[in-house]
Amino acid sequence: MALMREAKVHRIATQGPDDVSGLAAAIASGAISPAGILAILGKTEGNGCVNDFTRAFSVQSLKIELARHLPTAAVEEIAYVMSGGTEGALSPHILVLERTAGHPVHDRPSLAIGRALTPALPPEDLGRLAQVQMAAEGVRAAIRDAGIDDLGDVHFVQIKCPLLTSERIQRAEAEGYSTATRDTLKSMGLSRAASALGVAVALGELSLPDIDEAQIGRDMSLWSSRASTSAGVELENHEIVVLGMSRSWSGPLAVDHAVMADAIDVAPVKAAMDRLALGGEAASLVALLAKAEPGTSGRLRGSRHTMLDDSDISATRHARAFVGGVLAGLVGTAEIFVSGGAEHQGPDGGGPVAIIARRNGG
Amino acid sequence: MALMREAKVHRIATQGPDDVSGLAAAIASGAISPAGILAILGKTEGNGCVNDFTRAFSVQSLKIELARHLPTAAVEEIAYVMSGGTEGALSPHILVLERTAGHPVHDRPSLAIGRALTPALPPEDLGRLAQVQMAAEGVRAAIRDAGIDDLGDVHFVQIKCPLLTSERIQRAEAEGYSTATRDTLKSMGLSRAASALGVAVALGELSLPDIDEAQIGRDMSLWSSRASTSAGVELENHEIVVLGMSRSWSGPLAVDHAVMADAIDVAPVKAAMDRLALGGEAASLVALLAKAEPGTSGRLRGSRHTMLDDSDISATRHARAFVGGVLAGLVGTAEIFVSGGAEHQGPDGGGPVAIIARRNGG
Amino acid sequence: MALMREAKVHRIATQGPDDVSGLAAAIASGAISPAGILAILGKTEGNGCVNDFTRAFSVQSLKIELARHLPTAAVEEIAYVMSGGTEGALSPHILVLERTAGHPVHDRPSLAIGRALTPALPPEDLGRLAQVQMAAEGVRAAIRDAGIDDLGDVHFVQIKCPLLTSERIQRAEAEGYSTATRDTLKSMGLSRAASALGVAVALGELSLPDIDEAQIGRDMSLWSSRASTSAGVELENHEIVVLGMSRSWSGPLAVDHAVMADAIDVAPVKAAMDRLALGGEAASLVALLAKAEPGTSGRLRGSRHTMLDDSDISATRHARAFVGGVLAGLVGTAEIFVSGGAEHQGPDGGGPVAIIARRNGG
Amino acid sequence: MALMREAKVHRIATQGPDDVSGLAAAIASGAISPAGILAILGKTEGNGCVNDFTRAFSVQSLKIELARHLPTAAVEEIAYVMSGGTEGALSPHILVLERTAGHPVHDRPSLAIGRALTPALPPEDLGRLAQVQMAAEGVRAAIRDAGIDDLGDVHFVQIKCPLLTSERIQRAEAEGYSTATRDTLKSMGLSRAASALGVAVALGELSLPDIDEAQIGRDMSLWSSRASTSAGVELENHEIVVLGMSRSWSGPLAVDHAVMADAIDVAPVKAAMDRLALGGEAASLVALLAKAEPGTSGRLRGSRHTMLDDSDISATRHARAFVGGVLAGLVGTAEIFVSGGAEHQGPDGGGPVAIIARRNGG
Repeated sequence: MALMREAKVHRIATQGPDDVSGLAAAIASGAISPAGILAILGKTEGNGCVNDFTRAFSVQSLKIELARHLPTAAVEEIAYVMSGGTEGALSPHILVLERTAGHPVHDRPSLAIGRALTPALPPEDLGRLAQVQMAAEGVRAAIRDAGIDDLGDVHFVQIKCPLLTSERIQRAEAEGYSTATRDTLKSMGLSRAASALGVAVALGELSLPDIDEAQIGRDMSLWSSRASTSAGVELENHEIVVLGMSRSWSGPLAVDHAVMADAIDVAPVKAAMDRLALGGEAASLVALLAKAEPGTSGRLRGSRHTMLDDSDISATRHARAFVGGVLAGLVGTAEIFVSGGAEHQGPDGGGPVAIIARRNGG
Repeated sequence: MALMREAKVHRIATQGPDDVSGLAAAIASGAISPAGILAILGKTEGNGCVNDFTRAFSVQSLKIELARHLPTAAVEEIAYVMSGGTEGALSPHILVLERTAGHPVHDRPSLAIGRALTPALPPEDLGRLAQVQMAAEGVRAAIRDAGIDDLGDVHFVQIKCPLLTSERIQRAEAEGYSTATRDTLKSMGLSRAASALGVAVALGELSLPDIDEAQIGRDMSLWSSRASTSAGVELENHEIVVLGMSRSWSGPLAVDHAVMADAIDVAPVKAAMDRLALGGEAASLVALLAKAEPGTSGRLRGSRHTMLDDSDISATRHARAFVGGVLAGLVGTAEIFVSGGAEHQGPDGGGPVAIIARRNGG
Repeated sequence: MALMREAKVHRIATQGPDDVSGLAAAIASGAISPAGILAILGKTEGNGCVNDFTRAFSVQSLKIELARHLPTAAVEEIAYVMSGGTEGALSPHILVLERTAGHPVHDRPSLAIGRALTPALPPEDLGRLAQVQMAAEGVRAAIRDAGIDDLGDVHFVQIKCPLLTSERIQRAEAEGYSTATRDTLKSMGLSRAASALGVAVALGELSLPDIDEAQIGRDMSLWSSRASTSAGVELENHEIVVLGMSRSWSGPLAVDHAVMADAIDVAPVKAAMDRLALGGEAASLVALLAKAEPGTSGRLRGSRHTMLDDSDISATRHARAFVGGVLAGLVGTAEIFVSGGAEHQGPDGGGPVAIIARRNGG
Repeated sequence: MALMREAKVHRIATQGPDDVSGLAAAIASGAISPAGILAILGKTEGNGCVNDFTRAFSVQSLKIELARHLPTAAVEEIAYVMSGGTEGALSPHILVLERTAGHPVHDRPSLAIGRALTPALPPEDLGRLAQVQMAAEGVRAAIRDAGIDDLGDVHFVQIKCPLLTSERIQRAEAEGYSTATRDTLKSMGLSRAASALGVAVALGELSLPDIDEAQIGRDMSLWSSRASTSAGVELENHEIVVLGMSRSWSGPLAVDHAVMADAIDVAPVKAAMDRLALGGEAASLVALLAKAEPGTSGRLRGSRHTMLDDSDISATRHARAFVGGVLAGLVGTAEIFVSGGAEHQGPDGGGPVAIIARRNGG
């Protein structure tokens, strides 16, 4: 019989990108056992765009704190996924995902967390079908790691993927390859796009032969309902975290997801909340994770929006603020994880939403 | 017996601050009769702050168009209330308020519109109790003009109020007076604040003797549930438009209001929507008008927001985007009038919301 | 013998995009004769990017004023070239270029102004060699109109060029053509680029056969030393204004130009100032017109700049502020015309500078 | 006889706020001896305003690197003065100030560096005459530490001063005091202002009895020609670094200063450069440190600037970009230290400039 496990999700408010006092207190009190930390997701208060240094500042600060409790190798093994941009009333916080030994008590599925790392991605494969395939294999491994048997029980797949740097482009070119782009900023979008399509393939939403390489990052009619991807300069492979439901996990936490068809498509989110019994006494919200992007049509239900034409504020900032309002109005708190850069992550102008709830009483 | 009247509200999308093609088409088709226009409210796509020229550009463009149909004096008599800032997916549009001859058909109250102008405000009175009193008297006149008998039937009071310019300050000082401030930007906030308190006094929410002059613009525990005020350089008096319900008006339109206690306080808005029978076949949304401001505590239900510390994006822009999302998620369209600068207009961090609906069928 | 002419250049400060009081006063005093106005260039205080409505607001306001003095057709014939963005201490102003009857007094060349319009550019030609050729022919016509015999006497060529709109793209596609881009924003850059290369061809700096279509907007090693181009939605052809020196013109004004190799390359500007005898009693500055762009290398004389990575402030805004400081430090006023969008207008990271001076005494 | 000393100033480019590779390399090569570091000044690429986290990120990164070479106490003893905002082409870099044993070779004055710390400032004294006095005493101590005999030989005084936090305000109020302001942001300006006036008093530019407490932070006609102050949350006292010339120091470095009367007042800077023999073979630029602020009149030599009315870009960012251009045009590099927040540091709209040069040959 498989070892019973329990997933814990700690939502901790932060007073700044370098504020680790909440994490330190949770460790000191025993609420968090550092050795069990699989991943830390965080919303930081930068612009979420190119020159957002709050993400790296937060990661450096978290590592300094964790190094007080863990060996360096263990500190480095944790997946750090920082999303910049707390527009509107969105509130800076971190989500600490922990895997502990569970108790085989309840005869019901509970939140399951799986992790996987892929091999290093050759720079010339970035943004191409080879990356889609590598990501898909990694997602499958993470699903296995989580002990989830049914793909329908997977509700959220977070991938941190690599990007191209000048050095990596030169390395590929020195070996006679050409890269998908020579623009390092664009490589971030392509890597997010290929990774998201990898999720779709792993979850059976798309099949690899049906994807044309030219569609990666371009044809937004292809998308996964459960992918959330972000690119980072500090890795050359993929770090994958899967959230789902499994009977081999115990504990009060549960996860479900919804897909918003556009920025104000609240009905699917309400339905997911109902499935999780949120809104009454039976359950309480632990975390909400969503992707937001301005629709490329420049319209929302026929009405023109001005996000794409604003040269003062980046369109992704507008989208996070607005969708943050839509979702905070539903769940009653603005301490939610709304991030941008949603290529192939939900439909154009919409996006996937994952909700983690704590089931009370039972 | 009083003449029966009917109010019309035309919501017209715009493609830019100078786009009057929708207005021109509505006049050409006979849908709008220029002579009946009382006021035009508009959301324009500037920053909504000091250097937002889209408001004046829109007014200039509207006047050029209206001058094709009306004598200059009539063009100038219309109240133009432009609110800059279509953050998030908020959609640029104008609301044309028209007063026409009605038919004494229905035995029910309908949307009523009243207007009033105050005398010119001496510069030395701006931001002081004298302005509160003048605004209150103007609001009372507008309520009478609307034929509204019960103050509880008033649901929205829009005031356009003056501000101080260097010239006006000098004029006051030349006569031996001092003004409430010598900072022209601050004078906008003080004028909005005093005007909003004037609404509160006229509606019986506050009484004049209870207001200390030092509270104007400072003590946000004083507020009106139905005030919306904006300051403009082009006038020296107050232009007041009142929306409410009256049995001396006919037609399918109705108005109601709600007060949000904070930025995600959706229950009162849902209740107002229910009272108007929105959400089903019985009625459809015509317009929503709301005020949004970042709470001065820096927190929303205990969670820190970063709006007040953001030196890249003005806090009012954050607030409009976020509250725009909250409200658009409720009513299913982002073509709504969400404006900032909400001193004494609803509670700190919250704000008043007015909803105009068209009752179908009967 | 050719009719003697005199060019006048009026630099008028503005208090806002719609401030035409200075122009009106100059007309009222007789300083400006409206019928002689060939072009009005202006710096307005918008962001100089996509959603900058101050340019159109300024043009609408100027036309309202000029319509008081000229028939509509004459008002429309004037070239209005508004450049948004008065970053740093750059000061909003307009430059009114006027052509009057001159007196054959001085045996020396003086400032000459020429104008030309090209035919409408088919949308499918935009950003391609056909546009380069059309612009070149238009520049030649404007040089002839100015009565300038030697290409070396041409010091500044301003072109206002068209851009692609969705409607124009559809028109081209309906006729079986494809356009150079389907991105309307990119079409602005391509049109500026092709127009600037047209100037280079007309001035003999490049020859048409040497330009490969793929270089347009991409290969910044090709450039003109005297081109300044801007794209506008309101025209489908090219409006061209040439400034140079000619013996068939009289009057105290003279023009010269310099090319900055990078953003702090002041020596060529100082040399041009010396040639114009600026800095002493002999001459005084009338106007300075310059192009500024961040160097695409991300470096200035080896030092990294951060303009291209800033997601809060557009790189063109940084460049205008900085180069504005460099040039204002040289000429002693910030009421100078520094504009961005400098594809093929001077070398990468540098740009052309034209200076108009009034020769005193003689 | 006093021990001969030598000051070294290392200007090191950075690739990001956390880039310490240049510092590490200089230490590895022996160019910098960590034990001699007195202060590190840096320009980082944040917005230089409230939510600029690049400053703290840089300091955290520098401390991590220095902790590899120095005991913790020594790392903390170094003064870290980070200035955010590399607008225009300003280039991120650090200036490492080092004090080493010198050789009594040359019979001429050389760059001298002095340091001093004041006692902790009681919160209730911040922004008041008591702070002016405390800062003045600290500056005198730093001048003595530098071995500078003549106040005219002091060319630059950098003070890092405290600010008020909610906790400090409460502490003062608990003891029955009131603070100069309860607004923490405003306390930064007041602290910079009082510190700058302290420099003026120490240098004999002003005398303490002549300063009225109400003038602190308000009356910009009072200023020091050599003060540069910045407020930081991490200290409660004043860290003071003085740069000047002294015969008890040896080595090739020299410092001089100028005061710009407005943003384009280049003559005094040129004169200082001439005094340092910059511009030819005799000397080369090591570092330039300047303060920039938009003039509060809204005008520069009579021409309106728009910095103070721009709600999209902070006025201090405009000023740094523009003055950065002015100064970079003079010295031929944009790797210069231009910072904002210049209360009482140079005249309104102008500012002090210090230049460090390396004398070649001799």
